[in-house]
Amino acid sequence: MPNQPDHPTLLIPGPIEFDDAVLDSMGHYSQSHVGPPFVATFGETLTMLRKLLQTSDPASQPFIISGSGTLGWDLVAANLAEQEDEVLVLHTGYFADSFADCFETYGVKATQLKAPIGDRPQLPEIEKALKEKKYKLITVTHVDTSTGVLSEIKSLSELVHRVSPETLIVVDGVCSVGCEEICFDEWKLDAVLTASQKAIGCPPGLSISMYSGRAMEAFKNRKTPPASYFASFKNWTPIMQNYEAKKPSYFATPPTQLINALHTALTQILSSSLSSRFAAHRAASKRIKDTITSYGLSQLASNPENQANGMTAIYLPENVKAPEILPNILKRGVIFAGGLHKEIAAKYIRFGHMGVSVTDERRRDVDKALEVLRESLGDVGYQVK
Amino acid sequence: MPNQPDHPTLLIPGPIEFDDAVLDSMGHYSQSHVGPPFVATFGETLTMLRKLLQTSDPASQPFIISGSGTLGWDLVAANLAEQEDEVLVLHTGYFADSFADCFETYGVKATQLKAPIGDRPQLPEIEKALKEKKYKLITVTHVDTSTGVLSEIKSLSELVHRVSPETLIVVDGVCSVGCEEICFDEWKLDAVLTASQKAIGCPPGLSISMYSGRAMEAFKNRKTPPASYFASFKNWTPIMQNYEAKKPSYFATPPTQLINALHTALTQILSSSLSSRFAAHRAASKRIKDTITSYGLSQLASNPENQANGMTAIYLPENVKAPEILPNILKRGVIFAGGLHKEIAAKYIRFGHMGVSVTDERRRDVDKALEVLRESLGDVGYQVK
Repeated sequence: MPNQPDHPTLLIPGPIEFDDAVLDSMGHYSQSHVGPPFVATFGETLTMLRKLLQTSDPASQPFIISGSGTLGWDLVAANLAEQEDEVLVLHTGYFADSFADCFETYGVKATQLKAPIGDRPQLPEIEKALKEKKYKLITVTHVDTSTGVLSEIKSLSELVHRVSPETLIVVDGVCSVGCEEICFDEWKLDAVLTASQKAIGCPPGLSISMYSGRAMEAFKNRKTPPASYFASFKNWTPIMQNYEAKKPSYFATPPTQLINALHTALTQILSSSLSSRFAAHRAASKRIKDTITSYGLSQLASNPENQANGMTAIYLPENVKAPEILPNILKRGVIFAGGLHKEIAAKYIRFGHMGVSVTDERRRDVDKALEVLRESLGDVGYQVK
Repeated sequence: MPNQPDHPTLLIPGPIEFDDAVLDSMGHYSQSHVGPPFVATFGETLTMLRKLLQTSDPASQPFIISGSGTLGWDLVAANLAEQEDEVLVLHTGYFADSFADCFETYGVKATQLKAPIGDRPQLPEIEKALKEKKYKLITVTHVDTSTGVLSEIKSLSELVHRVSPETLIVVDGVCSVGCEEICFDEWKLDAVLTASQKAIGCPPGLSISMYSGRAMEAFKNRKTPPASYFASFKNWTPIMQNYEAKKPSYFATPPTQLINALHTALTQILSSSLSSRFAAHRAASKRIKDTITSYGLSQLASNPENQANGMTAIYLPENVKAPEILPNILKRGVIFAGGLHKEIAAKYIRFGHMGVSVTDERRRDVDKALEVLRESLGDVGYQVK
């Protein structure tokens, strides 16, 4: 059992529950951000990120920057696109709207291709859109944290490379990196963005991303300078390259404790095979989704092939509202999240099942959560058969 | 003595040594970023920041955002200035160049007023500059971490209010907030930017700032939208206001563990009077500077009224280079920083004396550092009399 003070089990789609060793690393004694011990830690962390994303192409460029996951959108919008460029944003929920908003901030024209709630844009529509206009890049939310919808990245990338080979492929992997398979090289991706606090299992505060050699080349060929200072590849690329080569370098002070914690989290993840990790998340997800179905509840992502493996967005029974049941769930020791998709926010709840809550079976977090959900449904007058 | 593994005492101008309780808070168990316990912690932290900066004006707006101190420059450049606006940057070292670079990224025209190394621009020159052109804002580095030069903020603000009353006054307080007095209301400042890892004594990863009602009004009256997404006041202001009102709110996931640590650090700072804290830093600084003078060494900031109280930039003896003496200092258990001002980087070292290394006398960090410096000078053939 974790050596942490008693607290409700946090099973929202991030931040997730963290391992003791990761939390211990958060309390690391102070280190110089340019001294050899921390430089080695940061350098190893960047190299481990390559392994997590299954890229061995030396031209791939990892970035680990102090900031929220949201900062990843600025990195894309301010470095890979320029004013008046056209980009295609595949919409599976709340986060596509925000990513589009980010592009517009930088004067980039974002066209959204929307699917009904719980679904994802289909390949034929995407093909049609790509043939209508020349897009600088296409973005896809691998797992939309607002709906639990999983997008299929491999076939999407094949389509883009076939129909519009110059379009860069940007994957928002905030709720997927660490729990859904991503083969950066094999799938020919150009950018994967994520954050620390979801399936990677490190506290929030790190914007984590990987760019292909082709994306870095597109950056070098910009006509205008990057549109952000703090989110500028020009400022960060030499820093990341120096740290990974174990050389000190300075643009802004990195969050030394968070980097130590990420080092611990990635070391843990890479100590087993990635395929077994993804299989564990798929197995836990199936068990959760089967149990929820047996409770008579449905999911926002109704089609099994659209369903994320690290979270489940669950429609509540007809007369039950999220603000009514969530306090009962908390009283029984579990925290789920409310709905985030504004039109239906009160009608559903979100259950995050990533990281140690899935891989460390001694914790029994998933069993507890399913039992608490069943009891809490009873509290509000819905009897599970 | 701190309950931390044995490690060299980190006496660079940030990150500084951290208190045990602050490091313990870094390992806080996982909390929902929108759950009542964390919302209360974040709200209290924002309110404590007002106290640290001595502002009781309800129109003042604090921001605490995941990011490095550098992000504070983007906040100013992307929200308080617009393309083609003119800004005046007072130059006391490396950081003014970077701040000017940040402005230029956003199309803002930065004019630098430079002083010789170790000095600061004088009021009559500033008055002359302010009369030559209408500046949207003026920036001053309170303590330039590259040179240890302290700027005088109160009289500067009086001058600006007298000569160019519409010009906003922006103080880069990265190396001053928490160790140098700042009276936000009384001195009529419009922005103070800082980071967590210096005199506030919380690990790096937080961009911390305070804006006046006048600055927020200037933001509202922009002709164009903010020029950044992640650094946008439009996105962050409602979030900060909601958290401070203890209401959950979401734009990007806040770094929950770092906010817990900042809460602990600010609670410790505010448990004594601010004036005693500043006096302790002045006293330690005087002792350090007197001792260094007695060693026959001089400082970059030669004029006592230009000297920061939280750090000292020390010229090495004629034939000693920083890369030669720093390893000896480390071998004896202390980490100082090398020079950062590029023209003379190898000729000086920087000694940071902020936070627990000054206020917790049981640690004896300052005594140890002065002794180590004396011995290490001996190692490289310079005998202190």
